[in-house]
Amino acid sequence: MDEATAFVPGHVTAFFSAHRDDDPTKAGSRGGGLALSDGVRVTVSRADERGDAGADADPGLYLDDDAIEMDSVARVLQALRVENARIEATTPLPLGSGFGVSGATALGTALAAGQVYERPLSEAELVTIAHGAEVQAGTGLGDVVAQARGGVPLRLEPGAPAHGRMDAIPSGPRRVEYLALGQLSTEAVLSGDTDQLSAAGERAVSTVAGEPTMGTFMEAARRFAREAGLLTDELRAVVTDVSDAGGDASMAMLGETVFALDTGLSDAGYDPAVCEVHRAGAVLE
Amino acid sequence: MDEATAFVPGHVTAFFSAHRDDDPTKAGSRGGGLALSDGVRVTVSRADERGDAGADADPGLYLDDDAIEMDSVARVLQALRVENARIEATTPLPLGSGFGVSGATALGTALAAGQVYERPLSEAELVTIAHGAEVQAGTGLGDVVAQARGGVPLRLEPGAPAHGRMDAIPSGPRRVEYLALGQLSTEAVLSGDTDQLSAAGERAVSTVAGEPTMGTFMEAARRFAREAGLLTDELRAVVTDVSDAGGDASMAMLGETVFALDTGLSDAGYDPAVCEVHRAGAVLE
Repeated sequence: MDEATAFVPGHVTAFFSAHRDDDPTKAGSRGGGLALSDGVRVTVSRADERGDAGADADPGLYLDDDAIEMDSVARVLQALRVENARIEATTPLPLGSGFGVSGATALGTALAAGQVYERPLSEAELVTIAHGAEVQAGTGLGDVVAQARGGVPLRLEPGAPAHGRMDAIPSGPRRVEYLALGQLSTEAVLSGDTDQLSAAGERAVSTVAGEPTMGTFMEAARRFAREAGLLTDELRAVVTDVSDAGGDASMAMLGETVFALDTGLSDAGYDPAVCEVHRAGAVLE
Repeated sequence: MDEATAFVPGHVTAFFSAHRDDDPTKAGSRGGGLALSDGVRVTVSRADERGDAGADADPGLYLDDDAIEMDSVARVLQALRVENARIEATTPLPLGSGFGVSGATALGTALAAGQVYERPLSEAELVTIAHGAEVQAGTGLGDVVAQARGGVPLRLEPGAPAHGRMDAIPSGPRRVEYLALGQLSTEAVLSGDTDQLSAAGERAVSTVAGEPTMGTFMEAARRFAREAGLLTDELRAVVTDVSDAGGDASMAMLGETVFALDTGLSDAGYDPAVCEVHRAGAVLE
């Protein structure tokens, strides 16, 4: 196969606790979030076999046609012993705003490169490679396993499939709106003191695991956003506007982004992007 | 919510080993199979609230409009303390032919009834209820967990989510053809001596887990079908015809059914039903 494409849903984390470990397959997070139908489509092809196809034959990673570097993707390729691949990723989601774009690109690269380069690896092994790459790059702790599962994933125990434990809140089709106000560096937050944040995250996971409904989930999300101390004034104002209009909104971890269920943001007078809960996990297309 | 609908993919098991346990959440099977885009769509509604809606208000289970009894479904409703529900299931798949129709109907009922009756249960809890119901009904050991996951699921450890362990072979879109020749009672096979079958199943799982590719999967499937001693002369003849035509086919466990990848059965001159590998698991629609 010369080329393969994977689609990986976006993912906003609503609450989480950080768990460090020297073994990147054991490191990760507990938490809960929403997989989104706005995601990342990743096509991997053998650049070295395109011959004189011109500019499109250059190896490297391209996000919406721009050449970029992503440490998570470089680490996936290294783990799979893949050289000279061309990776074309497209997404409607903004980078650095809490949608798991780096995790999605890493996972999509793992799934598609596994096909193109015929690596005899299972889904869990490819997810493990992408999770480990993301953890080592410092760009995320739980998006990859959530994106592999889809829906409204709960990360009950941290880590890659062999160590972590997942569940999910049952959800039918559900509209999600989001408003990205700016960027927030996952690396900067995670490299600081996360004790208070993690304590709040543990409480949120425990509450939602005990009553896995969307109502409990959004309530826990809002409480976590307050307790974790990451809400800017602007984020707080938008979340309050949505509440005042009778809706349900919170902050995407980690980005300066508000997400809402149903028509929460529109009802409050904002002009959000619209997608829905993506009930399936990452797939090869 | 007065009504909810779930879609559950069909599932053919290619190889398996049976694992009994007094705890139905620990009982189950190791094995591998294919989730199919031909599946069961289950709508649950509150019969008691339809008032004078006429015949459509009767509670009970209807499969393609015929009233039927399924022990697995009755047990799911009992576990969820649901009474007077009307359950309408539709499927292109034949019953008793190895497609996991009873498991799919049980799982679809659990997911949809959980929504209608607002049971605060997670996906894993609903899957556990359906798995336990199927095991206790004696109609299946591994379809439910495979149908919850989708794709080309490998059941590495038996049981419901808390005890079992799943993985999957990565697969892009892939055509599947099948030919149902007749019925085979899962209960009758599983209540007999399964030692030889299970030993062959353990070997198959171990081989495929070591090299999770579709080629290895189909080879292990054919070897298992021979070793388990379940191939009838007619099944054997069809599988041989497909091989002779250059294709890849094996027997669906447990049914008098042949399944093939791609155009295996058509190429051998048969007139099979056609669907594809369903890469997503069961979902609420």
